[in-house]
Amino acid sequence: MAHPKAFSHVHRVGFWETDAMGVVHHSNYLKYFEEARVSWMRAQHLIDCHYPNADLALGVIESRVSHLKPARFNDELRIFLQVKQERLKIHFQYAIYLNASDALVASGSTVLVPVNSSLRPVRVPEPLVAQLEKETWTETWP
Amino acid sequence: MAHPKAFSHVHRVGFWETDAMGVVHHSNYLKYFEEARVSWMRAQHLIDCHYPNADLALGVIESRVSHLKPARFNDELRIFLQVKQERLKIHFQYAIYLNASDALVASGSTVLVPVNSSLRPVRVPEPLVAQLEKETWTETWP
Amino acid sequence: MAHPKAFSHVHRVGFWETDAMGVVHHSNYLKYFEEARVSWMRAQHLIDCHYPNADLALGVIESRVSHLKPARFNDELRIFLQVKQERLKIHFQYAIYLNASDALVASGSTVLVPVNSSLRPVRVPEPLVAQLEKETWTETWP
Amino acid sequence: MAHPKAFSHVHRVGFWETDAMGVVHHSNYLKYFEEARVSWMRAQHLIDCHYPNADLALGVIESRVSHLKPARFNDELRIFLQVKQERLKIHFQYAIYLNASDALVASGSTVLVPVNSSLRPVRVPEPLVAQLEKETWTETWP
Repeated sequence: MAHPKAFSHVHRVGFWETDAMGVVHHSNYLKYFEEARVSWMRAQHLIDCHYPNADLALGVIESRVSHLKPARFNDELRIFLQVKQERLKIHFQYAIYLNASDALVASGSTVLVPVNSSLRPVRVPEPLVAQLEKETWTETWP
Repeated sequence: MAHPKAFSHVHRVGFWETDAMGVVHHSNYLKYFEEARVSWMRAQHLIDCHYPNADLALGVIESRVSHLKPARFNDELRIFLQVKQERLKIHFQYAIYLNASDALVASGSTVLVPVNSSLRPVRVPEPLVAQLEKETWTETWP
Repeated sequence: MAHPKAFSHVHRVGFWETDAMGVVHHSNYLKYFEEARVSWMRAQHLIDCHYPNADLALGVIESRVSHLKPARFNDELRIFLQVKQERLKIHFQYAIYLNASDALVASGSTVLVPVNSSLRPVRVPEPLVAQLEKETWTETWP
Repeated sequence: MAHPKAFSHVHRVGFWETDAMGVVHHSNYLKYFEEARVSWMRAQHLIDCHYPNADLALGVIESRVSHLKPARFNDELRIFLQVKQERLKIHFQYAIYLNASDALVASGSTVLVPVNSSLRPVRVPEPLVAQLEKETWTETWP
C-alpha cells in the first residue's frame, strides 16, 4: 500500500456496478472518487459546508481516470486521496487498491470549484481553507 | 406486440446497463419506466408542468416490476404504457418488448403523486388532468 | 427500529444517488435492497455460492418498493431484511430506516430464483438451503 | 456547432441522470461518451465485432472529461466524436453540445484497447482497422 499516511476510504464492489465483461464498469470509478472525497469531508467535519447543509457544493470541472487492473464483484477497494488548493480550484488525486493484494486498480484526479446552488463560483469557505492548509501533498503519486 | 394503440417509447440498451451475468441489471427497468413516462409527457406537451419548468414533479410512491426474459447489450426495447388518474394518484402500467421478436421482457407499474419542490403533495395540474381524461385504460395488461 | 433481531446493513447516501428534487432517486432503492442481500450472504458465508465464485446467481424475477419518506445526501440508512424459501423461489422483504430518527423511509420485496451463468434455473445450493431453514420470517413486516 | 462533418449522437437527459444541484451528475458523461462510441460502431456496421457478438470488447484504459456548462433534465445533447488508431490503442475524442443553443457543455477523451472476454489484449479486428483508416482526425478539437 503506497500511501500509509494518506486518507483512505473502503468500498465494497456491488453486483450492480459490474458490466457484461464481468468487471466494474469504468463510469463507477468517478463515483468511488466522489465517495472517498465526501468521506474525507465527513472525517474533517466539513460536511456542514456542503449542500444541502450550506448553499455550497464542490462542482467537478475536470476528471481523469487511468485503469490498471479490473475490479470485480465483492472486491474490497481502498481509495486513497490527497488534496490541495490552488486559488479557486481544489485538486484531488486518487489511487484505488485491491485491499486483499495491494494491487493498484486505478488512479486519477478531479478538479473542483466551490459553487452555490445557482452554480455560481463562490469563495472557498473558511473551515475548508483551514483544513486544506493542513493537508500534505506529494508529487510522487500514486 | 400486444398494444398497437398504446403510447410507446424505444430504448437501445447501453453497455453500462448490463451486469456480470451479461444481462440488463434489474434496477435499470425503473429507469426505462421513467424514460417512457417522460417521453409520454413530452409527446403530450406536458413537460412544462414538470420540474424544473414548474414547481412540480411526479414523485414515485410505489413501483413493481416483473421480469420474464433477459434483455442484453444493444437490444432495442419498446416500452408501452397506459395511465389513469385516481384522485391524487396517477397510475402507470408498463410492458417492455424486444423490438426484434415481440417477446415480452418485463411488465410493471408505478404510482405517482404530484409534489412541489418541497415534496408537499399538490393538485394535479389542469393540463395533465385534461390529458388524463383522454387516455384509455385496459384491465388486460400486458 | 422495528426489527431488532433481523439482519441489517448500513448504507450512507452518496451525492450521485440524489436527483434534481434533492432526494434519493427511486431507482436506487433496488440497489440498496441488493446491497443488503449481498451483505447478508457475506455474513452467512454464502458468497462462495454466488457468481463468479460459483456458476450461480440469484436472479430477480419480481420486485416491489413502497416509498414513505425521502432520503437525502449523507443520510445513514439501515436496511433490514428477512428471507424465506418457497420451492425454487427465494423471497426477501426489506425495510429501510433513517438511522438517526428511526423513521421508515421505504419497504419492499424481491423474489429471486437461482440461475446458472446461462440464466437457466438451477437447484438452490445446499449451503443456502441450510441457512434458509434457520431464518425466521414474520408476517407483520415492517 | 463546431464539427459539421464529425459523427454525432443525440441523447435526451433523463431525470435520473440529474443530482441534487439540479444538473447532470458528472459521472454520466462517461456513459454519454460510451453511448456515442457504440452508436458510431453501430452506424459503421461494427457492432458484430463487439462482445457478446464476438469475443472482443473495447476496454477503457484512460478517460478525461472537462465540464464547461451544466446540462439539465430534458436537455437534448449532441455528442460529436472523432477516432484514430495508434497501434493497440484506439483514441476517441468527444464534444458535447446543447442541441438548442450550440453551447459547448463538455469535452473529453477515452483510450481503449481491444480485449477478449478474459480481458487479455487482442489484435484490433480487421473490419474495425478498415474503418479506422477511413476516419479523419483533427488536432483542433473541439
